[in-house]
Amino acid sequence: MNTLIDFDIPSRLDIVEAAERIRPYIHHTPVLQCEQFNDLFQANILFKCENFQKAGAFKSRGAVNAVFSLTQDEIDRGVCTHSSGNHAQAMARAAALRKCKAYIVMPETSPKVKVNAVKHYGGMITFCKPTLEARERTLQEIRQKTGAIEIHPYNNLKIITAQASAARELFLEYNDLDMILTPVGGGGLLSGTALAAKYFSSHTKVIACEPAGADDAYRSFHDQKFYPSLNPKTIADGLLTSLGSYTFPLILEYVDTIVKVQEDSIIHAMKLIWERMKIIVEPSAAVTLAAILEKQIDTKGMKIALILSGGNVDLNKLPWS
Amino acid sequence: MNTLIDFDIPSRLDIVEAAERIRPYIHHTPVLQCEQFNDLFQANILFKCENFQKAGAFKSRGAVNAVFSLTQDEIDRGVCTHSSGNHAQAMARAAALRKCKAYIVMPETSPKVKVNAVKHYGGMITFCKPTLEARERTLQEIRQKTGAIEIHPYNNLKIITAQASAARELFLEYNDLDMILTPVGGGGLLSGTALAAKYFSSHTKVIACEPAGADDAYRSFHDQKFYPSLNPKTIADGLLTSLGSYTFPLILEYVDTIVKVQEDSIIHAMKLIWERMKIIVEPSAAVTLAAILEKQIDTKGMKIALILSGGNVDLNKLPWS
Repeated sequence: MNTLIDFDIPSRLDIVEAAERIRPYIHHTPVLQCEQFNDLFQANILFKCENFQKAGAFKSRGAVNAVFSLTQDEIDRGVCTHSSGNHAQAMARAAALRKCKAYIVMPETSPKVKVNAVKHYGGMITFCKPTLEARERTLQEIRQKTGAIEIHPYNNLKIITAQASAARELFLEYNDLDMILTPVGGGGLLSGTALAAKYFSSHTKVIACEPAGADDAYRSFHDQKFYPSLNPKTIADGLLTSLGSYTFPLILEYVDTIVKVQEDSIIHAMKLIWERMKIIVEPSAAVTLAAILEKQIDTKGMKIALILSGGNVDLNKLPWS
Repeated sequence: MNTLIDFDIPSRLDIVEAAERIRPYIHHTPVLQCEQFNDLFQANILFKCENFQKAGAFKSRGAVNAVFSLTQDEIDRGVCTHSSGNHAQAMARAAALRKCKAYIVMPETSPKVKVNAVKHYGGMITFCKPTLEARERTLQEIRQKTGAIEIHPYNNLKIITAQASAARELFLEYNDLDMILTPVGGGGLLSGTALAAKYFSSHTKVIACEPAGADDAYRSFHDQKFYPSLNPKTIADGLLTSLGSYTFPLILEYVDTIVKVQEDSIIHAMKLIWERMKIIVEPSAAVTLAAILEKQIDTKGMKIALILSGGNVDLNKLPWS
């Protein structure tokens, strides 16, 4: 056990309880296969389609769990977060379900489609300059003014235990997976997946994939030393963030390895999924197939699950056009 | 019974037999729903996802049935067709499954992605000028040279009975559909769907949707008089063709109505399906939702199935970019 774990590790029961709590409000997403990919990689590849999840990404699991774990007093104060992406939509939706105010700080450069989605769910947006510093300062002002409860997008055990539910669904349906692959950004999905593998699978390896242009988790894992994400450059806009004080220790302890992939592989993988599977995934969701395309992982004869983390894409601005 | 029906109408058993024949080689495609569309249209809308069908379109059903109905002598001669679209891929694939040669005549302007798909399945392509006259002449030359059996993309009873299997799957799963909507081009899917409704549903209305820029079926149906498709102009490239001597009489007899939709509605509907459902459909598949968007059909309180006919799109050339 690494010494960074100075908190209670979420238990098997915590994950089961989170899954039960969110069940009425999220999709049990389908698992798809594509014969062409199986042939191409001589493997049995399962795609867990969180792009079909409510609000278009796995983030709905964590957001619902965090919001529905609050007391009525806390709910009366509202919730707040800063996010330019899927967590913002997921939080706005979860808050609406619990009839609670959601204050969302978004950088003024956020894509219109994401801003509209937050508005669609009734989230109250405050725009700020597109820097981490401005986002945090604006959020703090809102917190002070409203007393709203902050829900961090990933460094929060309620979030992590709920993100684990996606992998748990997989393990309950397939008890013979050799590997499970997820993207890694802040590490909420990855640490949750690793916990699910620990509790609900016998021998499944947990492998994370990260863009080379935002490889802070890769370096942190292999050097066993935390590096923040500084000036990340990748099309995978969901994977720009640093690991957190919960996610990094859990990843160090329970993840088998992290690999990194090139930008052109991410775009190629994303386009392949669109073309062959006829489903829409965002760049962040394509890093796992990119790792297989790059032969970063030996797939031959293996049964492998890939978590397609989300499908929120600006259709007017595709990476190959 | 209209006097144009001078052939044996495919029977219930013909459709069941076709469904059995093709079953090992095609997908029983999923039916998806989208809460946002249900709310928006105050209806229960089911999407039959033939975009997830083998080779990306319902055409695989007909092609497999036609090829697998041939005798070994016929198979030894090979099959041929002209098509710039989904029928070409479906025929190449069906022929490969039966280890039979497939001669495909394609206009030299065919999108590269479609040409590559035909090659992928081992189809032998002959390019020609992009006119119906050149396509038919080139096909005739191939037929004379090789003795290959021509499989027409829609005006063929083996094709029609197999296209009926998509709607039959729907009716077996949902016995309370008020309406079923399909696109109409040459009328293979539509006439098959109408036959399936006649045999496998009690009261489901069959409604076809056609682009206003290629409204020959609309006019033929309402005037009860065959008009060929002359200079069609629409982004729905699967719906450019004329009705045939089998499809037109069946449509006249068994279809409830045909509506037409504008180009901008087709593009809007297509984009909505991509954005909200995270699935890829081609423009031709979006004409049914376009008709609902245009309020051509009163959906309120209805249970409606839409056949999403295909998902083959050139991702480098999207209609909204």
